[in-house]
Amino acid sequence: MVFQDHFVVQTSGRGTRLITSEIQEGVHRSGISRGICNLFLHHTSASLILCENADPEVRSDLERYMTGLVPDGDPMFAHNAEGPDDMPAHIRTILTSSEMSLPVVASRCELGTWQGVYLWEHRTAGHRRKLTLTVYGE
Amino acid sequence: MVFQDHFVVQTSGRGTRLITSEIQEGVHRSGISRGICNLFLHHTSASLILCENADPEVRSDLERYMTGLVPDGDPMFAHNAEGPDDMPAHIRTILTSSEMSLPVVASRCELGTWQGVYLWEHRTAGHRRKLTLTVYGE
Amino acid sequence: MVFQDHFVVQTSGRGTRLITSEIQEGVHRSGISRGICNLFLHHTSASLILCENADPEVRSDLERYMTGLVPDGDPMFAHNAEGPDDMPAHIRTILTSSEMSLPVVASRCELGTWQGVYLWEHRTAGHRRKLTLTVYGE
Repeated sequence: MVFQDHFVVQTSGRGTRLITSEIQEGVHRSGISRGICNLFLHHTSASLILCENADPEVRSDLERYMTGLVPDGDPMFAHNAEGPDDMPAHIRTILTSSEMSLPVVASRCELGTWQGVYLWEHRTAGHRRKLTLTVYGE
Repeated sequence: MVFQDHFVVQTSGRGTRLITSEIQEGVHRSGISRGICNLFLHHTSASLILCENADPEVRSDLERYMTGLVPDGDPMFAHNAEGPDDMPAHIRTILTSSEMSLPVVASRCELGTWQGVYLWEHRTAGHRRKLTLTVYGE
Repeated sequence: MVFQDHFVVQTSGRGTRLITSEIQEGVHRSGISRGICNLFLHHTSASLILCENADPEVRSDLERYMTGLVPDGDPMFAHNAEGPDDMPAHIRTILTSSEMSLPVVASRCELGTWQGVYLWEHRTAGHRRKLTLTVYGE
């Protein structure tokens, strides 16, 4: 069995947004109890991460760290037509990921207690971000 | 066909541990000869990597590099309740990955000659790390 | 249904090479219209990335950034038998990825408008790089 669905997340600029419940709801609708759930983000300046879901300081520390690792407006970047965050957003995406596959057990994505799935917007402005969810199994 | 299994790896603190044989054994038990093997780690402070499996200096260089890239105890980190390695462990996990999908060919994960699957513990203390292995195919 | 194929990409040294068309052609040959396409690279010194596919400066900026992040010939690296790019190639691979899973919709990998799949050679010399493509679904 294969189930596919698309959904859109409206971001409000740089930062992480928890999307675990959207995913669990998609898996529920698929009717598949055991298998894999693949998530795919159709963009090159936002990414999908599994991150600690309890202390919000983890995500603010993460943002601060990444801002230091890939500085906005670095003069080494030639690709800056959309602003100082343009090329850094592409690099942040490549250093993290645009897709992930999660086990489906008992009709749910079986995440660890402290794992949340986050969409990480890397542009400073908000964007409409499109995802494909594919669930397969039995 | 879908096969699922769970296993636990006890780590002895920061460092990499080869888990290729546990995975190949799981694929063997699945009875699936052609398809995909998905590995998923239920934690946000350890990760799964594919790494060179011949020279141990690769993994010690990798550890040294990562320690420089994400310094323990950096005063920029507010999330430090569990110690100076707490937030760096979350960042190291996000810069690598918690899941991977490998091709199953002729009843084995078809890895390259120099590829090993490693669980990378990012905390300085040892932990019990839980994994889900899902094999699907025919 | 499971379809598997292998293909080889000859690289000409460090840099990115677009492989989207090889992948779409494999999916077409699979006869599968809805499911997942998994790509797996059998090497620890080259990787697979999803990157902006319109402006070539994105890839040259990315290369320049990565060269700064993981300096060739850094004296901290003990593993250098194959030259100053040996250990950096392993680290670049681990900071990116060796595998990815893409949704198959209407007999094609459903990529975003600006997403291309690239093989990123991290060694300064050209290499023959082997990939496995697995498509499953219906």
